[in-house]
Amino acid sequence: MLEKVVILAAVSVLAILEQAYFSFQVIYARRKYSVSPPSTDGPPEFQRIYRAQMNCSEYFPIFITVLWTAGLFFSQGLSSVFGLLYLYGRFLYFRGYSQSSQRRLAPLYFCSKVLWALLSFSTLGILSSFCRFYLNLDVLQQLRSALRLVA
Amino acid sequence: MLEKVVILAAVSVLAILEQAYFSFQVIYARRKYSVSPPSTDGPPEFQRIYRAQMNCSEYFPIFITVLWTAGLFFSQGLSSVFGLLYLYGRFLYFRGYSQSSQRRLAPLYFCSKVLWALLSFSTLGILSSFCRFYLNLDVLQQLRSALRLVA
Amino acid sequence: MLEKVVILAAVSVLAILEQAYFSFQVIYARRKYSVSPPSTDGPPEFQRIYRAQMNCSEYFPIFITVLWTAGLFFSQGLSSVFGLLYLYGRFLYFRGYSQSSQRRLAPLYFCSKVLWALLSFSTLGILSSFCRFYLNLDVLQQLRSALRLVA
Repeated sequence: MLEKVVILAAVSVLAILEQAYFSFQVIYARRKYSVSPPSTDGPPEFQRIYRAQMNCSEYFPIFITVLWTAGLFFSQGLSSVFGLLYLYGRFLYFRGYSQSSQRRLAPLYFCSKVLWALLSFSTLGILSSFCRFYLNLDVLQQLRSALRLVA
Repeated sequence: MLEKVVILAAVSVLAILEQAYFSFQVIYARRKYSVSPPSTDGPPEFQRIYRAQMNCSEYFPIFITVLWTAGLFFSQGLSSVFGLLYLYGRFLYFRGYSQSSQRRLAPLYFCSKVLWALLSFSTLGILSSFCRFYLNLDVLQQLRSALRLVA
Repeated sequence: MLEKVVILAAVSVLAILEQAYFSFQVIYARRKYSVSPPSTDGPPEFQRIYRAQMNCSEYFPIFITVLWTAGLFFSQGLSSVFGLLYLYGRFLYFRGYSQSSQRRLAPLYFCSKVLWALLSFSTLGILSSFCRFYLNLDVLQQLRSALRLVA
């Protein structure tokens, strides 16, 4: 069983390390721009770094959920590849947003597309599992047989 | 194994779609009230939509955790029904909060009750599993036998 | 299978109860310092309680993820003990932050160390599983045999 989720777990651990990196960046920015907790107000440079980290944190549980549902019900390998793409996109997003609000956009759209792909994998995998468990119909198997008949 | 979590996974995917919908609403509100990132300050109308989305995001990982523990240890069917109720409550909450701070309250209390129910299912299921695994005592089975003796 | 995660699930439910406690504290603070939603601005006393809860919420999904990966791939018992330590640290953090920004620091460093420990357990467990599944090499077993040869 663990064999089917070990790569997902590895990507999840990587995601946590990335979040830790973002948190450290906020701590450095707090020192650099003299913004002491509990305040989160400061110059735009600080605000951007703080918002970048907040946005990544906000999407972290969504990413983990969709990574695991896609991995469990569709394909561990494909989900993990898209998971790595997402983490890379988030890194570019954080770096871009630290520089200017404009530069966050391209990586943000990229991350969003990767999330939609993972969500599609999840949906396909779950629907196909529903058919298998409740309608006793293996859609993927049927598709393969149909293709063989055609060939 | 996947049979025991496929409905939970489906509800989780729905929850992510709902979060995506809330995120889009914030993007539209940013445009409508001219609030450019990284700022999150703006007129009360924008603030309410932003806070509604933030609150839903904050509770998202709690909801997912309790949905899966209740589903794994108590009942997948019942947890999924309560999961759907929660998502419906969150939709009403978001719509209500967008209109006025007052209108967020009724759906908020409703969502809170649903979460407590899911938490109770989880607790019951986990306690009964503890008894079964560590005390070799099947509480639910014992209860059934006791009822049969009485009858 | 559920036997291998039941304690993790129990710790997760405890973590949710702690989050519920923090949320109630924010609601009381909103009343005490007359800060009505959607505003999150107020006197420093309110700000600290609000930020304490926000920080705990932000780390909640990271904690849950690392608790489960460490529990699944390394040791359920050890992960759960560290999970309880984390929850206790978070309680001290919240109480400390409510009193002064300074008093949040010691428990924050403690929580951070516990998270790094859980992350190390996860990494070790995942790496050892990778070796077992993909290199057909049981690192822990080899280590034990080597120790026996030495003895």
